Amino acid sequence: MRKEAQYFDDIVQARRSIRIYDDKATFDETAVDRSLERALLSPNSSNLQLWEFYRVKSKAKKNELAKYCLGQNAAKTANELIVFVTRKDKWKERARYVLAEAKKEFPATLSKKHKLIIEYYDKLIPTLYFSDPVDIAGGFKKIASVVSGTFQPIPREVTATDMRIVVHKSVALAAQTFMLSMKAEGYDTCPMEGFDSVRVKKFLNLPRGAEICMIVSVGTAKPEGVYGKRVRIPKEQVIFEI
Amino acid sequence: MRKEAQYFDDIVQARRSIRIYDDKATFDETAVDRSLERALLSPNSSNLQLWEFYRVKSKAKKNELAKYCLGQNAAKTANELIVFVTRKDKWKERARYVLAEAKKEFPATLSKKHKLIIEYYDKLIPTLYFSDPVDIAGGFKKIASVVSGTFQPIPREVTATDMRIVVHKSVALAAQTFMLSMKAEGYDTCPMEGFDSVRVKKFLNLPRGAEICMIVSVGTAKPEGVYGKRVRIPKEQVIFEI
Repeated sequence: MRKEAQYFDDIVQARRSIRIYDDKATFDETAVDRSLERALLSPNSSNLQLWEFYRVKSKAKKNELAKYCLGQNAAKTANELIVFVTRKDKWKERARYVLAEAKKEFPATLSKKHKLIIEYYDKLIPTLYFSDPVDIAGGFKKIASVVSGTFQPIPREVTATDMRIVVHKSVALAAQTFMLSMKAEGYDTCPMEGFDSVRVKKFLNLPRGAEICMIVSVGTAKPEGVYGKRVRIPKEQVIFEI
Repeated sequence: MRKEAQYFDDIVQARRSIRIYDDKATFDETAVDRSLERALLSPNSSNLQLWEFYRVKSKAKKNELAKYCLGQNAAKTANELIVFVTRKDKWKERARYVLAEAKKEFPATLSKKHKLIIEYYDKLIPTLYFSDPVDIAGGFKKIASVVSGTFQPIPREVTATDMRIVVHKSVALAAQTFMLSMKAEGYDTCPMEGFDSVRVKKFLNLPRGAEICMIVSVGTAKPEGVYGKRVRIPKEQVIFEI
């Protein structure tokens, strides 16, 4: 096995979700800086990067947020809490930025590939991401995909809910990069979904279109911070070959 | 920086989504075995592991699936295609398994912590995951959470759609572990969401309750398989401190 794979394996094996952190241990904040910057390099849908990361560091703010995490130990005892936020509502400005940056490298005479990239961001992305308050557009797109899909393979995920899911998935990819990175840096994490999203959004002053994907706490594990042995469904029941 | 962090950084920096693979390069299938087994160790919601991974390896099956991936090069030229599937419908059997395994370690006299774990899987999980075809239960849970949430912090994600999102997020965490692992093993990947999920589900013979989260292609990058420079939104626009 390659050395890189061995190191990666060690990181994955060592990572456990930690429910109690050691507040006496030293904590290097720059590990969070580096890990968030690595998270930004995660793959994501159409490279729109519809994410935001909020580091909650001050004691007062952490205590407040821990309450909205239903008082979980994993939140209360952490050195920092990082809120992973979806920003589906920012699709237009992000698409514009990404296409403008890509265009800087395009040759004077565009090839078919370059024209397709422009069309992708100018036409397909708005078709997918545009939605009205009750998603009438999504209903029409769904009908069109069902009809058209009778004849040929075609994307089926076209409603506003489908696109919400797409963005949550992308933010989760970033969250996992972050958690593995923190373990590589010698620290521990716990991803939490048990929180009051209404209160968390208000706390972060987020608009309606933003959603809380996950809150990840970070710190150094106390031995009793691991709740029990690692339990996994046997791989024969989840990995299949075709 | 720790050596582990340096290796991890190298992996993250080197990973790019690859659209054209080199079919002349040698490919070690066991790297996929190891990477999928690492993916299984990803954190996930309530440790229910509501995922399945389908490796599509035979030429004929790969070609068929590539068609359902809308004929993308990233699918057509890959050594393997791995379909990451959500199995929200399996919550009951997975909860039973995970709790039974955890209980094996419990002492004869249960502490408060152990009782809470049992209650979590026996009571809370069914409340969250149970749903009827039109999600009337979700409507009631939503109303209850709004009312109760006026007085205290309480989880707001209680509908069938919310739980679909939860499962997709967990499967995405596993997908990112897999992709980083493949890079650590010296191979490349491309996560795809552009596919016909109706045809893919039929192809894999999946029931109604299963969903396609992502299809990840693997192989060795051709130099022209990287479409353009890496574009990222400046970090000041996505990372904030509270």
